[in-house]
Amino acid sequence: MADVARLAGVSIATVSRALRDVPGVSQPTRDRVRDIARELSYVISPEASALSRGHTGRVAVVVPRLEAWFYGAMLGAMAPVLRAADLDMLVYETEGEQERTRFLRELPARRKADAVLLTALPLSQTEVARLDLMGAHVVVAGGTVRDFPHVAVDDLAAGRTAVRHLLDLGHRRVAMLRTNDTDGAVWSADVQRTEAWRTTLRDAGLDASDELLASESYGVDAGARGLARLLALPEPPTAVFAYSDELAFSAIAHARRVGLRVPEDLSVIGVDGHPLGETLGTTTVDQHVTDQGRLAAELVVGLLAGGTVADVEVPATLVVRDTTAPPAH
Amino acid sequence: MADVARLAGVSIATVSRALRDVPGVSQPTRDRVRDIARELSYVISPEASALSRGHTGRVAVVVPRLEAWFYGAMLGAMAPVLRAADLDMLVYETEGEQERTRFLRELPARRKADAVLLTALPLSQTEVARLDLMGAHVVVAGGTVRDFPHVAVDDLAAGRTAVRHLLDLGHRRVAMLRTNDTDGAVWSADVQRTEAWRTTLRDAGLDASDELLASESYGVDAGARGLARLLALPEPPTAVFAYSDELAFSAIAHARRVGLRVPEDLSVIGVDGHPLGETLGTTTVDQHVTDQGRLAAELVVGLLAGGTVADVEVPATLVVRDTTAPPAH
Repeated sequence: MADVARLAGVSIATVSRALRDVPGVSQPTRDRVRDIARELSYVISPEASALSRGHTGRVAVVVPRLEAWFYGAMLGAMAPVLRAADLDMLVYETEGEQERTRFLRELPARRKADAVLLTALPLSQTEVARLDLMGAHVVVAGGTVRDFPHVAVDDLAAGRTAVRHLLDLGHRRVAMLRTNDTDGAVWSADVQRTEAWRTTLRDAGLDASDELLASESYGVDAGARGLARLLALPEPPTAVFAYSDELAFSAIAHARRVGLRVPEDLSVIGVDGHPLGETLGTTTVDQHVTDQGRLAAELVVGLLAGGTVADVEVPATLVVRDTTAPPAH
Repeated sequence: MADVARLAGVSIATVSRALRDVPGVSQPTRDRVRDIARELSYVISPEASALSRGHTGRVAVVVPRLEAWFYGAMLGAMAPVLRAADLDMLVYETEGEQERTRFLRELPARRKADAVLLTALPLSQTEVARLDLMGAHVVVAGGTVRDFPHVAVDDLAAGRTAVRHLLDLGHRRVAMLRTNDTDGAVWSADVQRTEAWRTTLRDAGLDASDELLASESYGVDAGARGLARLLALPEPPTAVFAYSDELAFSAIAHARRVGLRVPEDLSVIGVDGHPLGETLGTTTVDQHVTDQGRLAAELVVGLLAGGTVADVEVPATLVVRDTTAPPAH
């Protein structure tokens, strides 16, 4: 950049503005700077040529946890879209509050990517404010964060669909299973699904007290732990709405281990559309994760092409399989 | 590389070995190749100059399929190690033969990363040769590729452990389930586990004919399809060794759907240590994927710090749960 400035007889700031197509530089100067830059980029560095192109050619995807199926499915759907647009995919995992806070303090993705794709990443108020310093487009996949463009299901509707399915079957004591790994932060999907559970029950004149909301720390046995707590209640539930299919799998396995038949003695419904749900016959509200990932990546590609983009809402669909049925009595 | 080979009067393979510090090249040749490479990199190509500049601060991880649990677990284990070393993680998915061939033809990761981590990526002979053009360290996770540094379990031993567990229980008709998504390429883990199944049976004087080896196209129901085929044999197996836990889950679900009790009527063992295996009570040979991912990333960090590295073998361990038992009669 300094070389271009010297040869063009302008300041480095002007070179930067001219190459980034920011207003405030006359057309002749802009042309001269670009000609010189183009010439130099031949011999100097790929980095300079990247600068003159105006972008890094990379998109950063930030996820809270790579091991969970949801994020792999998201990344797997994003990857081919970004690749087709000749964009490389940087991936950052920010597991837990501490990592997330560190990521947002240090912003390792800053200036390394043209866009940042936040994938189901719970954030505190302070953390959200830091996103403005990213110096890149921000797009949200699988939920909403402030007013950033996003792709998501309507989580209120998804939650209502799940709980209404249980009520329609005749259940009157319906618990919810969630994990509390978003503590200290807000994750729209979590807030809305929990809200849907509460309001759908209350609208039906049913109990939605806190004892029926089992919040467990994240882990492969979280569903089992939560269900164990619910089954120990003086009046245990006959049906459970699980925040995710993985929670549902774990809860169902626990129920069967303690001698309960699913769905005869206990109905369980999840949310996701996890492929193993098909294998295991688990009733779910499919949130079409692959569609969400693909559409979010397309949104990024559209933004980088200079287009304007609209939020996308993916419809959630009830998939009734073998883990929900009318209550025994 | 061709230019260096011509000027040094050696083969391209020798240049590759000399530059990668692999044994089998004499010190004088090694020095000559390096001198010429250094000289050429100064004047010829930006790619060589990137090499001489040292580093990009990025590691490219190449996986065949992001959605499968295995790769998410690998990435999840690699991410914190790379982050701690201030390295960004580029992720490339090369699903299927066509994408893989395209990736190796275009090498989008070339000049963009200091090291490339191949994660359980099946490769043809021609594709392996292309890796020398990557201009970066190559490390292999979850298997072996040529003589590149690698982290893996001993897949022969893992396969033998699984099959012997079934033989020790008294099974004499033992099938194997695998997917054929590596067709046209060689994936060491696949080759070795299949070989282990065959030789362990033959050493015990048992049938290991092709009708007992069910190879299905990849998909969430691959295990179910494979098992359906095996159950249709004139003499069906009493036990199945599945290449992965996900295949085992699908096979077990299918067995139960068609009225077979697992393990009473059919024993099934997988390989992986998939967290849902704990939930579902599936017997497995745990290949400690998280350890493999972490160690492979540490190997990369060591290489980039200029150290010499040794291959790492992670022990596979038998985890007996509820899906294997002696045969009914």
